[in-house]
Amino acid sequence: MNDELQNRLKELSYLRSISSLLNWDSSTQMPKNGGKNRANAAAYLSGLLRQKSTDERFISLIKDLDQKKDKTDIENAVVYRVKLNYEFLERIPEDFYIEFRKNVSMAELAWEDARDKNDYSIFLPYLKKIISDNKQIAEYVGYKTSPYDVFLDRYEKGLTTTTLDPIFEKLKKECGDITKKLSANGSVNKPELPKVRYDKSIQKEMSLDLLSTIGFSMDSGTLSEIIHPMASSLSSSDVRLSVNYNESDFTEIYLSVLHEGGHGLYEQNIEPSLYGTTLSSGTSMSIHEACSRMYENNLGRSDIFLNFYYPKIVKLFPQMQSLSFDDFYKVINKSEPSLVRIHADEVTYHMHIIIRYELERALLNDNLSVEELPHLWNEKYEKYLGVKPTNYVDGVLQDVHWSNSLIGYFPSYSLGSIYASQFFHAFKKENADWKENIEKGNIIPLTSWMKEKVFKHGSIYTALDILNRVTGEGINVDHYTSYLKEKYSK
Amino acid sequence: MNDELQNRLKELSYLRSISSLLNWDSSTQMPKNGGKNRANAAAYLSGLLRQKSTDERFISLIKDLDQKKDKTDIENAVVYRVKLNYEFLERIPEDFYIEFRKNVSMAELAWEDARDKNDYSIFLPYLKKIISDNKQIAEYVGYKTSPYDVFLDRYEKGLTTTTLDPIFEKLKKECGDITKKLSANGSVNKPELPKVRYDKSIQKEMSLDLLSTIGFSMDSGTLSEIIHPMASSLSSSDVRLSVNYNESDFTEIYLSVLHEGGHGLYEQNIEPSLYGTTLSSGTSMSIHEACSRMYENNLGRSDIFLNFYYPKIVKLFPQMQSLSFDDFYKVINKSEPSLVRIHADEVTYHMHIIIRYELERALLNDNLSVEELPHLWNEKYEKYLGVKPTNYVDGVLQDVHWSNSLIGYFPSYSLGSIYASQFFHAFKKENADWKENIEKGNIIPLTSWMKEKVFKHGSIYTALDILNRVTGEGINVDHYTSYLKEKYSK
Repeated sequence: MNDELQNRLKELSYLRSISSLLNWDSSTQMPKNGGKNRANAAAYLSGLLRQKSTDERFISLIKDLDQKKDKTDIENAVVYRVKLNYEFLERIPEDFYIEFRKNVSMAELAWEDARDKNDYSIFLPYLKKIISDNKQIAEYVGYKTSPYDVFLDRYEKGLTTTTLDPIFEKLKKECGDITKKLSANGSVNKPELPKVRYDKSIQKEMSLDLLSTIGFSMDSGTLSEIIHPMASSLSSSDVRLSVNYNESDFTEIYLSVLHEGGHGLYEQNIEPSLYGTTLSSGTSMSIHEACSRMYENNLGRSDIFLNFYYPKIVKLFPQMQSLSFDDFYKVINKSEPSLVRIHADEVTYHMHIIIRYELERALLNDNLSVEELPHLWNEKYEKYLGVKPTNYVDGVLQDVHWSNSLIGYFPSYSLGSIYASQFFHAFKKENADWKENIEKGNIIPLTSWMKEKVFKHGSIYTALDILNRVTGEGINVDHYTSYLKEKYSK
Repeated sequence: MNDELQNRLKELSYLRSISSLLNWDSSTQMPKNGGKNRANAAAYLSGLLRQKSTDERFISLIKDLDQKKDKTDIENAVVYRVKLNYEFLERIPEDFYIEFRKNVSMAELAWEDARDKNDYSIFLPYLKKIISDNKQIAEYVGYKTSPYDVFLDRYEKGLTTTTLDPIFEKLKKECGDITKKLSANGSVNKPELPKVRYDKSIQKEMSLDLLSTIGFSMDSGTLSEIIHPMASSLSSSDVRLSVNYNESDFTEIYLSVLHEGGHGLYEQNIEPSLYGTTLSSGTSMSIHEACSRMYENNLGRSDIFLNFYYPKIVKLFPQMQSLSFDDFYKVINKSEPSLVRIHADEVTYHMHIIIRYELERALLNDNLSVEELPHLWNEKYEKYLGVKPTNYVDGVLQDVHWSNSLIGYFPSYSLGSIYASQFFHAFKKENADWKENIEKGNIIPLTSWMKEKVFKHGSIYTALDILNRVTGEGINVDHYTSYLKEKYSK
């Protein structure tokens, strides 16, 4: 790779890192009135990034590199990703794209305001434009079967509704069966968390302890407060986690910090020399979710790890003494249909995803208007989960994603659960002492294994490449469904 | 002004706003290890800003505008400032400048580290390069008498050591006389703050109340914690104050928040339509300091305002009940030679500035090496103030300025005190009810007057223009010295 190309890739890395800072800051630090000027600055930056990732000289340097024989893995990945990106972007007119991004950068503030006031109409015009712009983008880019395929493909290269439908069918059936079995048991033995106040500052202490336990470095990261939890990476040495403390239920932060911590570990452990190559971030949303879900679910909800961590919890929250370990385990693994995705359990979770998947497809296929969306949202929740939101905050306004135009992103969460179980299965197979380590709270071997197998490679390999390299097979939903069936047969 | 130029000025505004965010974030939010990649990104951004403020097309658009007859005040100011900037920058080779900025952006972290460890040698190599680079810059730019004039001129257009020397002589004499008179009184009646802990969270509550009292909007601003207090403006609707809480002395934050709040009011009240013209920030460091010092000293240390605010303080800190109002007034206005500039009183403060002024000149004139600097620092403190630092943190490492390459900046603080008294004198003359209002804690008329006279104009007029427009005269040190003499004759 010649110096000129290397410098241009560095430029792109700097601009992306700065964009991440702007996004993180908008969500966590910026005062209310700062939004308008910020939207303009962010739109300008995104235009600059677009211009620099698509300008003629840059593309010609990439094409030259493409011609080179015996390319390294890094060179191959750079060519592949840049081509993917410019072949997508070059179909979209620049003016249209700048206006689109400008709306998107204001939409999150509108979404926050709408949530504060429980008023969908505040967010409606922004979402309407996001949907119509995305329809337009699908037309610009082109598709075979469904406009939705354009967006699935953005987050998971090669994925289409045709591939995804049978996977979601299997999940629907298996998870539905478990739910039926559990509800047949009725209200028998459903322990609850003591109804007391769990101090925010102690929850923060626990969060920092959990992050340290899994190996997240606070010298290369931060933890702050926000409405919707998230992880933002400015570089592998500056990874920012944001979480939300609920003082009436500390188990939310227990799971949430492991989840965001999993995202954070991925970003922190990417080979530092990849910074400046445009490959220094997670390879796909689904692999990212596999990391976060493994730490949240396969580790955090397991009896083995909980056995180790329960005494620490009782020490932090003495009010927990009244709950036995067995009952605490049941609380953490309670499965019950609910309204809010991010607090959903592993069994009912995928129904939340399938609802969004169906709604997004309907919006893009013109079978649903943005005005009718809250109504159909509520209807589907009642039909699939037997619960119905009584306000927008716990309903259609609950996720930040649509305000960021992340259409086609939700399926990655379910794929993440599937991949997580595939990775964890491989980890156990390759590490005979896995159980003793986790029993002792020694999570570093898991994190080191994940670093070697997944984290450090950044975006050098695609999601399916990584899955194959680590597990020796493609997408296999059985590891996940067996894991669930085993847990809930107890 | 044509569209092309307007768009280019907007670009510059966005890039400056983003640079401010990076700086603010580096000082308040960024994790320790994030510094290296941040330094690269910041250096890239600063190179981009430099390139865009000096590129041929931009300069030719400015030259075209310069030819236009009947320019508006805004057009005149844009031409004046752009020319000032490119005439400075075009003399400095680009590669040199990028390297210079890269070192500067790492220097602040080194300075923080050096403070943490009380180890000057950590900061030494960075400061050494900053000084030698600045000497080089002075040679590139050119000067008549002293290389130091190049830097004075950067912060206060037209100011030279020749103008400044007699002003500093007068200050030295008058302040010296007051100090002599006070020390002749010996230790008679020097009340002290009760030696108890002043809770940080209550100090924060007081800070927010003070900011609200002077009219600083928390919808367009934030307040966070930092080593060295500062105010950063991303735009008039996003102004970020950072302060430091000392739990053994709440009067530090009382004065510091009024000081940073004064800076913040200036930035928040700049006419919003100036955003995007490059004129939407304070016109000079000295006028900025006039604003901050007016709220800190002329208002915050006055018996009139303290009479109003003292009961609030007693309510927040009941431990203060043991101190009478008269004694509290003496505590706030205590004058005593000390080591740390930012905590110095109004009388001894200027000696701190004069020491830095003399050291900076010696460094640039090759009369002093960076290695010897701490020694001479200590010597001068002993000679001029009769106190000697026993560590670097309270000595040569106390200010952030040199780590940001702000050579020539310190004199602005003293000019700020002088201008503040000139402004406050004019305010009293034009507002017959000024006293009743301040007695009632109604500070909004002062802030509104300052908005009309100073704040809203941003950078449309130069410092001396503003001073003349508001006070009808040029630099006049007498208002300040009379104000001090009157206060300390009591």
